[in-house]
Amino acid sequence: MRQLRWPVAAAAAVSLALALEALPAALRWLWGGRRRRRRREVLFFPSQVTCTEALLQAPGAPAGAPAGCLCGLPHGESSLSRLLRALLAARASLEICLFAFSSPQLGRAVQLLHQRGVRVRIVTDCDYMALNGSQIGLLRKAGIPVRHDQDLGYMHHKFAIVDKKVLITGSLNWTTQAIQNNKENVLIMEDEEYVQLFLAEFERIWEEFNPTKYTFFPQKDRSH
Amino acid sequence: MRQLRWPVAAAAAVSLALALEALPAALRWLWGGRRRRRRREVLFFPSQVTCTEALLQAPGAPAGAPAGCLCGLPHGESSLSRLLRALLAARASLEICLFAFSSPQLGRAVQLLHQRGVRVRIVTDCDYMALNGSQIGLLRKAGIPVRHDQDLGYMHHKFAIVDKKVLITGSLNWTTQAIQNNKENVLIMEDEEYVQLFLAEFERIWEEFNPTKYTFFPQKDRSH
Repeated sequence: MRQLRWPVAAAAAVSLALALEALPAALRWLWGGRRRRRRREVLFFPSQVTCTEALLQAPGAPAGAPAGCLCGLPHGESSLSRLLRALLAARASLEICLFAFSSPQLGRAVQLLHQRGVRVRIVTDCDYMALNGSQIGLLRKAGIPVRHDQDLGYMHHKFAIVDKKVLITGSLNWTTQAIQNNKENVLIMEDEEYVQLFLAEFERIWEEFNPTKYTFFPQKDRSH
Repeated sequence: MRQLRWPVAAAAAVSLALALEALPAALRWLWGGRRRRRRREVLFFPSQVTCTEALLQAPGAPAGAPAGCLCGLPHGESSLSRLLRALLAARASLEICLFAFSSPQLGRAVQLLHQRGVRVRIVTDCDYMALNGSQIGLLRKAGIPVRHDQDLGYMHHKFAIVDKKVLITGSLNWTTQAIQNNKENVLIMEDEEYVQLFLAEFERIWEEFNPTKYTFFPQKDRSH
């Protein structure tokens, strides 16, 4: 057996070296395992019209309200229900940066989150916030802070950030027209890098649209 | 030295086991190394107005054209120049799925790619393609195939796919108004999963908007 000692020692050394070499990779693999579980989803619209009542039942709904909805709509999943779920997962904060917001279901979801104590902030476009059917007035009345631009360029973003962890962004304005009729996309990405970039953009706009900076009586251009 | 043999053999066995255990992780790490180099970029708009002539010079530009542009605009990078670069990187194919397309610079970039032999296909919205300043007519005249909807819902996507490898998507319509005045975002993602999902969406719409399926004389609703 004595002649085995050196080969064994050599194998030990090589294996140990390999094992140490691979340690960072193994750690990355463990970390990557966590990373792979992170949410990555793409929703395409138009969404099938489904009943979303079960998702939007407030905890304080009137006693005796039926547990199952009896309406005639399908009750399965749809792009809209998935979007609602992604939003309703919020526990601490929700930033919304949205050109147009008139979908009653999405409005109810945001109000529910506000009632649950989630810190909701909304940035929107001044030209679209006052249109018929806009949810912005209702959300303001409910006590949610809303800021908007005062200039000619559109605040045309369509994104939201859930708990500073999940970015929801795409082409979709939160309107029933867009949800039910348009071809649209929404990415749902649990991705720190993107979240940080969009959060910084939100904070920049939030400050830029600070009402203390509004010009209520714009100075006339005196250069002419 | 004889008493060392078993500990050495044990260490060898453990290390070998560790090394084998870590092998898939090491392979993933190597693969991940390639993956990390993949492009991930977020562009925010409005873009600074910069000169993009250098990017858009056709190889067959008139002899004697100045190498450096002498116009009064800044000549650095901007969100628009980065978007142009991402598109101009195309070598084989470019799918464009866009609600509104009127930016002359982006139009020129797409024509350049078409001249270079890149297979360009465009899907757009029927309501916006004929507006003043739309690039769609010019691109069609140049020989690029364009398909559009015929219905009331908007084709509201704003994405492009470069060489079936890079997805460009966001809130930005390719119009000068949006580029220079609006708050907008564009993600540039070299990400196979997202590219495949958006490519499938493009092909679905491309087939849906096949002109052989157009209804030129819509049948009247006879149910009333």
